[in-house]
Amino acid sequence: MSNTLAPLTAEAPLANWVGAVKRSELQKMLSAASSPDIISFALGLPAPEFFPREALSRAAAAVLASDARSLQYGPPSQLLKRQIVDLMTQRGVKCHEGQIFLTSGAQQGMNLLARLLLDTGGQVLAEEMIYTGFQQVIEPYQPNLLTIRADPETGMDVSAVESILERGARPAFIYAMSDGHNPLTVSLSLGNRKRLAELARKYHIPIMEDDAYGFLYYGAACVPPLRAFDDQWVFYIGSFSKTLGPGLRSGWIVLPESLIPKLSIVKEASDIDTTTFAQRTIAAFLEAEDFNQHLVRLRREYKMRRDAMLCSMRDHFPPQARWRVPDTGVFIWVELPSEVDAAAMLSVAIEKERVAFIPGQAFCVNENCRATNCMRLNFSNSSPELIEEGIKRLARAIGSYENESN
Amino acid sequence: MSNTLAPLTAEAPLANWVGAVKRSELQKMLSAASSPDIISFALGLPAPEFFPREALSRAAAAVLASDARSLQYGPPSQLLKRQIVDLMTQRGVKCHEGQIFLTSGAQQGMNLLARLLLDTGGQVLAEEMIYTGFQQVIEPYQPNLLTIRADPETGMDVSAVESILERGARPAFIYAMSDGHNPLTVSLSLGNRKRLAELARKYHIPIMEDDAYGFLYYGAACVPPLRAFDDQWVFYIGSFSKTLGPGLRSGWIVLPESLIPKLSIVKEASDIDTTTFAQRTIAAFLEAEDFNQHLVRLRREYKMRRDAMLCSMRDHFPPQARWRVPDTGVFIWVELPSEVDAAAMLSVAIEKERVAFIPGQAFCVNENCRATNCMRLNFSNSSPELIEEGIKRLARAIGSYENESN
Repeated sequence: MSNTLAPLTAEAPLANWVGAVKRSELQKMLSAASSPDIISFALGLPAPEFFPREALSRAAAAVLASDARSLQYGPPSQLLKRQIVDLMTQRGVKCHEGQIFLTSGAQQGMNLLARLLLDTGGQVLAEEMIYTGFQQVIEPYQPNLLTIRADPETGMDVSAVESILERGARPAFIYAMSDGHNPLTVSLSLGNRKRLAELARKYHIPIMEDDAYGFLYYGAACVPPLRAFDDQWVFYIGSFSKTLGPGLRSGWIVLPESLIPKLSIVKEASDIDTTTFAQRTIAAFLEAEDFNQHLVRLRREYKMRRDAMLCSMRDHFPPQARWRVPDTGVFIWVELPSEVDAAAMLSVAIEKERVAFIPGQAFCVNENCRATNCMRLNFSNSSPELIEEGIKRLARAIGSYENESN
Repeated sequence: MSNTLAPLTAEAPLANWVGAVKRSELQKMLSAASSPDIISFALGLPAPEFFPREALSRAAAAVLASDARSLQYGPPSQLLKRQIVDLMTQRGVKCHEGQIFLTSGAQQGMNLLARLLLDTGGQVLAEEMIYTGFQQVIEPYQPNLLTIRADPETGMDVSAVESILERGARPAFIYAMSDGHNPLTVSLSLGNRKRLAELARKYHIPIMEDDAYGFLYYGAACVPPLRAFDDQWVFYIGSFSKTLGPGLRSGWIVLPESLIPKLSIVKEASDIDTTTFAQRTIAAFLEAEDFNQHLVRLRREYKMRRDAMLCSMRDHFPPQARWRVPDTGVFIWVELPSEVDAAAMLSVAIEKERVAFIPGQAFCVNENCRATNCMRLNFSNSSPELIEEGIKRLARAIGSYENESN
């Protein structure tokens, strides 16, 4: 019954913005790098060996046994909202259930907020080096992106934000990662957090605060996220992906209660509900288990991996390479000697040394931004042993690239 | 640490399209109608008592026990794609795994395709009475909606589609439900299916075929969906929501393989992955269980509910009321005497008789469309006993409304 009437070479015309999207050289390389013999420091994957599988299995069985509506359409889980309020308290944020909106992970959180706030061709204020997933979120809007510098030591240049707003710009929102910036790994100082929240309040510009890594900190008691300093203009995005498992697709937004009805319309149009099954399974898990103990273990294990990577880099990387110790998140940002082109070096690394990373330039949103000699390394998804081996290989790739260039 | 600096009455400015969205009187009424003492024929909910909970619980436990990556980010399940190819064969559609794209339910399928195909202000061709969830999907694009009539007896007016295209319109896509139209319940004839697919091919206009209810047919061997008559211009949307459980949020699109890379970009930006956990759980369920037997049971049970509703209506509704027997889906479309305003009658029905439905006008996309005396009744989510009681109540509401009007 398939069509045999006409030769079908034509293709459906796509939306304008799609035409501009190309699969990058980087994506092709990384897809080649998914082979199992490659040690990958490329993606921000959590370690599957720490997913609390048995406890989640018990939780899933319990919700399926107790209530058929765990597989039905349904209103968001009030129990899970209450539990998220408690988690937010631990992050230093006061909020209530009426301000919690459940999402299919942090990525959808960004997506729904962009749809709520941004018109096609509208303005967005962001750093010139940002998470590629956020770049993808705003791409369909073909936005006018106002960019500011981010310093690998101090993070977002809040003075630059201020002067842009002072000069009259009124972006639809500001995108910010105050803890464990992706890719720079830096966290904002307390002073800069307060100042940024104050600017949002003063100029009535919402901040989309992406806190995907906020629960993975390795230092002492952390400074709270931006949301702790303003409950009206900071829209906080959190996720269970890095702490329980991304395969559950569960995250949340904390935002002013008055916006929830509008956001519900956006969500309903997108995918109706966040999976009731996963919501209830997570809620049952949080009821039955000691999530804090799980987080403590996760931080301890990831800190060991971070430190293994730092030690190996110190032992094997060229002395001109620079990095800082990240206190939050799952990445290390490395500046190689300025003559190294990290994107070119990546193909050597993959082909000869079987090791992968993301070149810094991939995070740049414009051409003023220069990170050609930088790379982002993930430490959460490899064992300390593999990390050591991977860093040795990477050091050889850097060395051979340097030799070739000389 | 919450803000105390300024009185915060201002709100973030929202995207233009959001400003136009208002919570309707209908939504307020239906939200009031969620009380447990109300018999609701309003929403298109499947019956939770038929969800295969035990089998899904076994499947979930098996995938969690066998592989930590069942909670990880990951490529779409190849096994599930193969199983969907088999299901499509049962629907009379030939396709292969390379043409299957997994989604978070049919609603997301529509959403992703709209984003792929539609520009802001672009044209969409659809019937003047359509599924409200589809209306929500295109609303943010503020589209130019080209509408055609749909007949409750024969469905989409394919001649009208032809003349619109002949006159030169080139919409981004045509939205169609060839089986179990929501809300009209009608299915297109074989001839009209072939003709519509031919028009898509001739004019190079993609058809978004929404087959949410296609597996729930109550008659003899069904005519295959539009996708069976063209594999290049018909983009088919399917779902496990009505057959396994909407709380899993799992559906699929069948589309030309060449579009998968672009659609993957849209999906990644939306929510990265469709929950790996649900994908694998469903795949394990389909491996271990007899899904066909489950479908046979579901059809038998739903047919009993449909017939219970038809019998009760015949016994209790006023003689001027009209309906047809739906051969697919979970709704009955009823035309009441022309003087009845179903929306006004709904408030009587809810307040006095504790029974709810959706008034026909809610499905109209423009003012030319008149369905004020119509209502959509769902039969899948109430037992035959409740259906009988609910129809009696509804008959009383119609009667008392008629008396009041006279």
